[in-house]
Formats: sequence, C-alpha cells, structure tokens
Amino acid sequence: MRIPLDPHSSQPLYRQIEDYLRQAIRSGSLPPETRLPATRQLAEDLGVSRITVKNAYAELESDGLIASRPGSGTYVSPPLLAPASPDRPADIRWPLWQQDLPAVEAPAIAKPPGRDLNARAHPDPIAFTGVGDPGQFPVRNFLKSIQTVIRRDGVAALEYSGFDGGYDPLRETITQVLASQGIRAQPEHVLVTAGSQQALALACQVLLKSGDAVLVENPTYNFALELFRTRAVKLVGVPIDEAGMQVERVETLLQQHHPRLIYTIPNFQNPSGACLSVERRRQLLALAERYNIPILEDDFVGDLRYDGRALPAIKALDPGGRVIYIGTFSKMLMPGLRVGFLAAEGPVYDHLLRSKLVHDLITSTLMQRTLDDYVTIGRYQTHLRRSVRLYRKRRDAMLEAIRRHLPTGVSFQSPQGGLFIWLELPEDVSALELAPFAEQQGVGYSPGSLFFVEPAQGEGYLRLNFATQDSQRIEEGIRRLGEAMHRLRQAAR
Amino acid sequence: MRIPLDPHSSQPLYRQIEDYLRQAIRSGSLPPETRLPATRQLAEDLGVSRITVKNAYAELESDGLIASRPGSGTYVSPPLLAPASPDRPADIRWPLWQQDLPAVEAPAIAKPPGRDLNARAHPDPIAFTGVGDPGQFPVRNFLKSIQTVIRRDGVAALEYSGFDGGYDPLRETITQVLASQGIRAQPEHVLVTAGSQQALALACQVLLKSGDAVLVENPTYNFALELFRTRAVKLVGVPIDEAGMQVERVETLLQQHHPRLIYTIPNFQNPSGACLSVERRRQLLALAERYNIPILEDDFVGDLRYDGRALPAIKALDPGGRVIYIGTFSKMLMPGLRVGFLAAEGPVYDHLLRSKLVHDLITSTLMQRTLDDYVTIGRYQTHLRRSVRLYRKRRDAMLEAIRRHLPTGVSFQSPQGGLFIWLELPEDVSALELAPFAEQQGVGYSPGSLFFVEPAQGEGYLRLNFATQDSQRIEEGIRRLGEAMHRLRQAAR
Repeated sequence: MRIPLDPHSSQPLYRQIEDYLRQAIRSGSLPPETRLPATRQLAEDLGVSRITVKNAYAELESDGLIASRPGSGTYVSPPLLAPASPDRPADIRWPLWQQDLPAVEAPAIAKPPGRDLNARAHPDPIAFTGVGDPGQFPVRNFLKSIQTVIRRDGVAALEYSGFDGGYDPLRETITQVLASQGIRAQPEHVLVTAGSQQALALACQVLLKSGDAVLVENPTYNFALELFRTRAVKLVGVPIDEAGMQVERVETLLQQHHPRLIYTIPNFQNPSGACLSVERRRQLLALAERYNIPILEDDFVGDLRYDGRALPAIKALDPGGRVIYIGTFSKMLMPGLRVGFLAAEGPVYDHLLRSKLVHDLITSTLMQRTLDDYVTIGRYQTHLRRSVRLYRKRRDAMLEAIRRHLPTGVSFQSPQGGLFIWLELPEDVSALELAPFAEQQGVGYSPGSLFFVEPAQGEGYLRLNFATQDSQRIEEGIRRLGEAMHRLRQAAR
Repeated sequence: MRIPLDPHSSQPLYRQIEDYLRQAIRSGSLPPETRLPATRQLAEDLGVSRITVKNAYAELESDGLIASRPGSGTYVSPPLLAPASPDRPADIRWPLWQQDLPAVEAPAIAKPPGRDLNARAHPDPIAFTGVGDPGQFPVRNFLKSIQTVIRRDGVAALEYSGFDGGYDPLRETITQVLASQGIRAQPEHVLVTAGSQQALALACQVLLKSGDAVLVENPTYNFALELFRTRAVKLVGVPIDEAGMQVERVETLLQQHHPRLIYTIPNFQNPSGACLSVERRRQLLALAERYNIPILEDDFVGDLRYDGRALPAIKALDPGGRVIYIGTFSKMLMPGLRVGFLAAEGPVYDHLLRSKLVHDLITSTLMQRTLDDYVTIGRYQTHLRRSVRLYRKRRDAMLEAIRRHLPTGVSFQSPQGGLFIWLELPEDVSALELAPFAEQQGVGYSPGSLFFVEPAQGEGYLRLNFATQDSQRIEEGIRRLGEAMHRLRQAAR
C-alpha cells in the first residue's frame, strides 16, 4: 500500500497514515471487509518504523473503523452509522482546463447502439432495441473453443502477437468468408479490429481532419454519427429511399462540399433496412473514382438476408484501393466478443495498421484464436443459417403485428434482411411525444432523432429491432406500441 | 456467395460467373479444398437459372480448376502448375487519394513495444525485449476463471454491457487495487480500456488537437511517442536523471511551449527504469496546477518493486481532477488480454468515456468478467508476489552479468523495479553500428533511438528487458552482447 507521506509536515507520520486510512474508509475506497496490510509490511512499504503503523492502526481501531482478528489480520469494519458522504465537498472547483471542456450531451454517452430503453416504468418491458438475440448463442460450444485454444496453444494464446494486422489463421479465415461474399482479398489486406466500431474509428483517424466533410446516408448508424461529431467533422447527409442512398443526388453534394470520405451501409441499412441497388452501387463507385474520394463500406449484417438475391459488395466491384470494407462477426455471434475486421489495399492499409497499433496495439489474442477455431469448424455457417431462419420468422411476425395494431398513417418497408424495421409515424404522432406513453405501456424502441445529421429531422421516425424478441412478445410489444399511439392521440384532443 | 453480375453486359451470365470464380481460384482467394456452393444454392443467391451455374461449373471443371465429388459437392482442385500470381498487375495505379498519403516509416509499424528482434541470423537468439515472462502465467487457472464466468453468467458473459465505463464489479475491484496504492477513487471514476495503450489514445483524443504541444520525458515509451506523432502533436522533451524527469527544467519549457498535456511514467520509467522522487512529484503537480495543464500519469508497472519503499502516485497527491491515472494488469498477467484502465474525476471523465464508446464501444465483456474473477479471488496478489521475487533475481543476474561481460565505459543505474535496464554505451559504440554484430552473436535488445523525441539522440543507448529470460540465458545473452561490442571495436580499428 502506497500512502503519500510528507516527512517535512508538522503532523506526525502516524497521524498522516491514520488520516489517510480514515478518509479512504469513509469515502468507501476501502470498503468493509478489506484486509489491511500487516503492520510489518506497511512499515516496510512506507519506510517508517513498525510502531508508527501500529499507532495509526490503534487510533483507527479505537474509533471502531477497523478491527483486528487474531490469527487472520486487520480488517475494515462495517460502518457504525450511515456511510458518510465522500470527503469531496459538493462545490469542488475543478481545474480550469476541466471547466473549459464543452459539456458532453447526456444522450450521447453511456448508451449502447439501440439500447435506449425507455420502458423502465413497466414491470415487464419489451424492448425492440439491441443487436440480436443473445439467447441464440451456443455458449457451451464457444467455451469448448476457448478450451481447445488454451490446451492447444498454452500461454501463446495470451501473449502479444499479430502486430501486422491480427492472428494470421483468423485473417485467412476472414479472407475465405469474404471470398464467399464475392470479395477477393488477400490475408495481408485484412486488419482485425475491436469490433466494427474500431474499424470506423481507424478509418476516420487516417482519412479525416477536423473540419473535413464526410458524406453519409441520412439517417445512418448513430455511433458513426457520434464518432464523426467527436472528430469535429462536417456531416453532409444524402436522403435515402427504398433502394438506399439516393446516389443521383451525390454529385451535386460532392461539388458543393468536397467531402473527404463517403460512408455507406449498403445492405439492410441501419436504421432504415434499405438495400442499395446494384445500379447505385456502381454509380457510387464511379463517382468516388471521378472525384477521388474513398468509400467506407460498412457491411455490418450483410449475411443476414431473408429473401431476394444477394447483391455484390461495393468492394467486390472495386478494381482496387477505392473501398475500405468493414465487416464483423459480432452481430451473428456475440457482441461482447469485440472482434471485427476491415479489408483495404494499397498504401492506406499501412496507415490503418499504424492507427490500430497506437490505438490499442492488438485485439485480444485469445478472442482472435477462439473465434478462428469456432468459425473454422463450420459452426459459424450453421449458426448463421439458424439465425436467418429464426429472424425471418420474427420479421414476418413484426410486420403482421404492425399491420394489425398500429394505426393507418404509419408507413414502413419490409426489409429483406438485417435487424431493423424503420417506421415513419403519422403526422400527428412525434417520437418525442410518444415516449412517455410508450414507457407507460412498457415498450422500448430507438427514437429516430438518434440517426439523423440534424436530430430534429428524426422526430417522425422510430426504429424497431425485430430480432431480439420471440414472436409472442413481438405481438404483445407492438400491441402496446399501438396502444401508446392511441393514448397519445386521445391526450392531444 | 455473392458474385457481381452485370445483366447489361455483352458477356453471358454463365461466363461472368466462370470468370469470377476462375480469378478467385487463381488469386488464392478460394484456396484448394474450398467447397463451392451447390448449383441450386448459387443460382438462388444470384437470381439466375440453375443451368447458368451448371454451365459455369462445367467450364471450370473441364479446365481442372474444380472437381465434383459425388455425394459430397464441388471443390476447388489443387493447382496443376505453380500457382499463378495474383491477377493484380505489379504496376497497379492506386487512386490519387491513396498516392497522396505520406509514406509510413517501416520501423513505426508492425513492431510490438520492445520486441524489435534483431537476432534472426542466429540459431538460438536471446532477446532482451518483450514485456514480461509469459512462462510465469498460470494458464490453467485463468481457464478456470473463464469456465467459472461462463457457467455463472451464461450468455451475459458475451453480451454488450458496461457502457458507462466497464463491468461494474471489475471497476470496484480496480478501486480497491488503487486504494492499496494510495489512490482514493470511486468506481464511477474508473474507465476500463483495451490495455493502457488505449487509455493513452483516449486522453490524447480528448485533450490534444493537432499542432498542440505535449511535454514528455525524453526518452520515453516508444508507442506513446508514436501515438503523439500520428496526432501531429509537437513533442517537448524533458531530460531525465536517476530521479526521473528533471522537473526543475519544466517551468521554462511550460513558458516557452505552452504544452496542453504533461505525460509522465513516474515509476520504473520506460525505458530508463528511473523513479521520479516524491519531491519532484509534488513540484510537477504544483506546476500543473499553476499553469493549468493536465497530467497523464502512466503507472504501467508501479506494482513491480524489488527494493526501496513505495512512493505515492502523483494521483494520490492530487486534490482532484488534475491527474488522469493509467494502470494495467497486462504486464503482470498476460499482455494478450488487453485490459487496462484509467481513473479520472470531473468533466473530463465523460469526455474520456465518450471517446471510448466511439473508439470501440466496450472492451470484451468476457475478458472483463474473467479478469475480475481472477483478481478477486486473490490469485493476482499471489502472482504479483511471485513475479516480484522472480524478476528481482533476474535483475540482479543481469546487473552482475553486465559488470562481468560488458566493457568499462558502459554505464547504467540499478532499477528498483519494473522491467528494464537502460545502458549508456561508451562513446565509440553506437547502437546502430552494434546491431549487425549483436545479430551475428544472437542477442536482441531495443535500440535507444526508439525512445527519443529526436531518434538520433538515442544512438548511444540501448534498453534491456531483464524479466523475459532466466538467469542462465541472461548470463549467456549479456556475454554475447559483450562479444558483439568487442568485435565492433576490433572492426573499427
């Protein structure tokens, strides 16, 4: 234990130790049942005599703050009274540089993508948020993969490795997954990242300076918007329709704003569920070529297709070096794993790799090896097929429930894949005004404002995740949502 | 499988499929033994007739590129000849934005901190690099913690959670570890990060803009320098002596350069091994207060003390909000885990949290829960005590070997803890010129140039990690280093 002591202080050393421990116990830094160091050990640590430490402990013991148990040691006692408030006064003055920091907006932090539960008031809330049904994940099989890796690789599974882009066998496996999606990549073009969010952050770091403009679908993934905002990047939104980004509007925007990056989610877009048509994919690539702008293609759930035919990734149409492709296993497997990847060729790859290294060196070696074992043995394909069957049913259940329970005037597209249904509300229903009624009914959703360049543009929308709840709860949740809309309208009369 | 098809092309669809697969097989994207989709499946995926796919497969089969195995499927064949080179011509022209990227210096990337092996030429090289002896890590016990967590928490161990700074029980455990080091923190001031490198990157992102100046010890941790360089930050180096950063020089530098951040490694500094004296810790804090500058305190191996008494962290002397403290488990446990943390109070905490979220959302839930289980049950303290005993012996062995085998003129301090001995070479020996001789002898070290603001300043230094090799190999490695110096001198005559 390190305790700051001032040998020049007028206060004796035992008192300095006593005061320090007293404050630590009162503030909760040393909670009840914490074992204090033996007096001999603490004396040695602090370079003081043992009697000094004993005196400090004796004072604390006589005040009932600590108690020694013969043969066991000295422990912090449970509080005699209600715990004192921390010793920092409420009107603490932070240093000026802290006072000068801009306020962080509350909704921006501490919210997982789509987990904006607003249903706390209800005993059994149904939240159409989150990213997939974790109940589907075969935890035991995954544990078996961890065991296999630790038995096979021993300590190597926990060492530093893969400083040139990731664990090589995993990069090879990812190359094969990409090939099955029509993307020809080499393992040395694959960079393993801490989820797809980190891939976005790396591309952002390498390609954008503050003040640069970036072209995004509007609406788009809220944590991408948040990332761009923290980088002080100018957001240029392109409206979407049922065939994704309205690419025919893009050229004018390129000429007007000179963006340095085009960010797109072509498959089952978040939040709209729209799929960018092949024609538009080709047009977008041609524009990126003509105007010399990189495309960042976020294919977060490209594999989760329930009907229609698979479309080529923009990356698959790229003659080389124009598109940085971002993929992830986390939507199909477990988001808590935090393993994603990007594929990029040319000089930009080395920049992305350097950015990865300075950000966090490497992604957990154990998680990379385990994921490779799990994916290689074919469980991934099995798991994916099962997920597709299950989520297709749930999508259909939600579409049916919407038609049954929501008022006319609500409009939506049936998504061909992915996780989300994007609702446009009737003119007299705003997502903001709906919130307290939905909370009362016990149903959660992601308000549209999260996903727009100008949050106010999202007032008339909300996003529903159909993959996280079973059909029965989907039926009940959408019924509640209809009831909330009904009550909002009644209240407005 | 998604194959880009152009229905308007003059080329028939079966030929487009055939060409695509042919290129994928030749380039290695679809390696031998890859199973191709069934014709029915691929036809469905691509929205073409089954006969189209059959025609494409027939062409490929007649060329010997694929072969169908009755009852099993169609597989990519082993290459008949040497594999063709990838279909990208060598003189590929990258898009202009890629050509405009500055060159990334080779030594900057793909090198783990200190793993700059330059001993590849020898059959049994001894590398005094790396970060600790992974052989000491009780892998089986760690696997038990993983099993415990998965059995106890099930799928929750793999879900998203801890969006307000980490897994709460781990944050509480970290608070107690901090308290034992004299730092009073609350769990809500602790942010779990992907190793200490990410904590550095977050602080950098929040506190520095490009062009800002940052005050660093010179020499200092190479990956911190690399991080600052990628952010286009101006580096202001403060010389060090045996009591760490020469704080009495700092005020002049503050007035001259107006840095926005002071970065320091007060305990067993990387690379010098020096410990900042308590007097200087207090002075530095007072200067930071007077000039309104945050201190980033990197305590990467503060626990690994072999003799002398524990010094208070600068954070422990901070009345509040002046110091961002960075700690890690990775040096004591396994670097491949990638779990570190920072502690900070005041408005800056919310900024750091937001930066964490946009960078990679959260750190692996499973790794956080496992680490908490492992640390809580006391194995960490046991492991730490064992490491201290072992590494103390190795430090002493290396000091003795240096005195025995290295020429007079080599100078160094005996570090009181940590991992490194920092050698100043005699005037006629440069680390750069020494390298080929060391390689020939089969001994590895980290050249001093990695650690200096101006790499040329490090010509006369090298860093040795004494923790990664046992005493016998330390003796042999240092003997080889002495031999390399001897041969360099002979060659120079």
